[in-house]
Amino acid sequence: MNYSDRLADIQPFFVMEVLSRAKALEREGRDIIHLEIGEPDFPTPPLVVERATEFLRRGEVRYTPAAGLPELREAIAKYYLDRYGVRVASERIFVTPGASGAFLLAMGLLLNPGDKVLLADPGYPCYANFVRLYGGTPALVPVGAESRFHVNSEILAAHWDDRTKGAVIASPSNPTGTVLYPEELNALVDEIERRSGFLIADEIYHGLEYEKPSPTALTYSDRVFVVNSFSKYFGMTGWRLGWLVVPADSIDNAEKLAQNMFISAPAPSQYGALASFKEENLQELERRRRVFQDRRDYLCDQLRKIGFSLNTIPSGAFYVYAGCSRLTSNSLDFAMGLLEKTGVALTPGKDFGKNSPETHLRFSYAVTLARLADALSRIRRFVQG
Amino acid sequence: MNYSDRLADIQPFFVMEVLSRAKALEREGRDIIHLEIGEPDFPTPPLVVERATEFLRRGEVRYTPAAGLPELREAIAKYYLDRYGVRVASERIFVTPGASGAFLLAMGLLLNPGDKVLLADPGYPCYANFVRLYGGTPALVPVGAESRFHVNSEILAAHWDDRTKGAVIASPSNPTGTVLYPEELNALVDEIERRSGFLIADEIYHGLEYEKPSPTALTYSDRVFVVNSFSKYFGMTGWRLGWLVVPADSIDNAEKLAQNMFISAPAPSQYGALASFKEENLQELERRRRVFQDRRDYLCDQLRKIGFSLNTIPSGAFYVYAGCSRLTSNSLDFAMGLLEKTGVALTPGKDFGKNSPETHLRFSYAVTLARLADALSRIRRFVQG
Repeated sequence: MNYSDRLADIQPFFVMEVLSRAKALEREGRDIIHLEIGEPDFPTPPLVVERATEFLRRGEVRYTPAAGLPELREAIAKYYLDRYGVRVASERIFVTPGASGAFLLAMGLLLNPGDKVLLADPGYPCYANFVRLYGGTPALVPVGAESRFHVNSEILAAHWDDRTKGAVIASPSNPTGTVLYPEELNALVDEIERRSGFLIADEIYHGLEYEKPSPTALTYSDRVFVVNSFSKYFGMTGWRLGWLVVPADSIDNAEKLAQNMFISAPAPSQYGALASFKEENLQELERRRRVFQDRRDYLCDQLRKIGFSLNTIPSGAFYVYAGCSRLTSNSLDFAMGLLEKTGVALTPGKDFGKNSPETHLRFSYAVTLARLADALSRIRRFVQG
Repeated sequence: MNYSDRLADIQPFFVMEVLSRAKALEREGRDIIHLEIGEPDFPTPPLVVERATEFLRRGEVRYTPAAGLPELREAIAKYYLDRYGVRVASERIFVTPGASGAFLLAMGLLLNPGDKVLLADPGYPCYANFVRLYGGTPALVPVGAESRFHVNSEILAAHWDDRTKGAVIASPSNPTGTVLYPEELNALVDEIERRSGFLIADEIYHGLEYEKPSPTALTYSDRVFVVNSFSKYFGMTGWRLGWLVVPADSIDNAEKLAQNMFISAPAPSQYGALASFKEENLQELERRRRVFQDRRDYLCDQLRKIGFSLNTIPSGAFYVYAGCSRLTSNSLDFAMGLLEKTGVALTPGKDFGKNSPETHLRFSYAVTLARLADALSRIRRFVQG
């Protein structure tokens, strides 16, 4: 039996090594502070739980239409209008099993074998693997503090070639937490359209922004593919629910693919998500956002004092991608050593690409300020030997 | 912007046309009997709802491990032992977003562009589309009443060529409801192993069998890929939860792919599913199975009387794939006309392949006996003009 060639190019995540060692230490009774996790520490908002529970009580947990519950698609469309001032027809919105499902769907719509797709390096590793899944070629574009770790229109133009079909961007970015400014996003959308390429904009960290709220890429064009999720800002990770906005002329194709790939997204999650857009829930999410902001301020300040370098402001998500070249030349060893000695778990740069991963570490601030303070004093002691 | 070539080969389901016309008629106040639906009419079993609700009440709805909750994987392993007498290590079991997720995962593991995969025609249309998704070539093998609509080892051998990498089988089958006998399944597994091909066995209708329970393909080899689901027998369609059993040496690759493609299956569904294997729940499922059996007996008998031909016994699932050549030479027109005139919705053969679809219709018996009787008298009147 032969396996698919694509598997050779897909690496397991190094953070899984960290996580499994962390769990082993926990079983030995050690206190582990988890700064490696890409998941908000808040529980699912109570209104969402309530709405889902109400739905379950009826017992009728059926397939929904492949594109999602009509009322949820309407609610998302209304959210685009309320939050961004952008009109998006609900027919263009496909509710998917997580943002993962949205990426599977978008790339299934767009990619042919051999197509090149530009991706920021460092970046979320799954993008490249979704491209590989469909026989495409991920083209990692090294980006640094100069462009706040983003592929902007100039960088895009410099890397675009005849085989390039499009790009994936993410703002706020995982792992860097940095955002593209509105004029940069606008220029990037224009540049790609000039080249008749596709743009997939990952907006799953929208809402978790600490300077200014970002505009959606849909502000500048109705030809972009936008991925979003109920996981991060809306606090619904385990529910596995996201969405994809497609251009109007992709609706039929997206419908066809979604029917085949998913049948539908989970019904309890879709009913629960209906409560996400209630005013009372949005107020709760705003409270959570401010808590993240305080943690970010504190973490950035403390990391600099310890000797990490932060050459850009992480303005969103709940990550800081800190340079550690003054402290180590091997961030994976550093992370494993830190975990072993102090019980603080981090994600090594290696999970995010090939652009100086050995001198970067991702800190997630999805823990309380008190735990963050504890983690930072442990790190300080570790660094001071 | 160019779309993927694969879209040209993927057809939308004709049943969607039926369904959307059925809904339009319902909005006009017409009473529609839905015999087109691939979904049990029973609600989610109460123990499952209860277990999921309990879980939700805690509010901590987190990502689970990519392969699924360890306790759910253990429970599924125990189920293989209890039901089939087969030992399957829980590490080989991957919990997925529906059986759809299991197919995405299995074919992602196995297929390279150009690989041929043998599929029974008539068969579930998504198999071919999953193959196309990864650039493979579905090879539809016409099968009829002689082999109870299954690809058996002789038929497989006759269609296997140098480009063939494997086959997907489904027993009980959708749309035919027919099963492979144990000795046929055994011979098929052996034949494929001799050829070093892969076998993906779709067992999502296991449990819904009305003559004898089927053995799992895992009885005959630990090299097969088995897909199963909580949707049909366990009555959890809208929860979107299935699983894939992989050979031991595929665990690492499956883990890598599942992390990238799904992050994890929905947590509320996984917790709910833990209650599926309780004795009290299994007794409820057995009661439901007998209800399906009574409906099947009645439906088959009545269809024959009306003039449909049934040359095989549909021994499982909740479908009858009836020949209608004595009544029409165009099953799609027949289905649309029947719906319009009588309000009975069926699935036309066209959704299941190219092997005489125009003289076949799929009847689903996921409605009460009373509704079935009503549908049949409407059909009788329609046929008698």
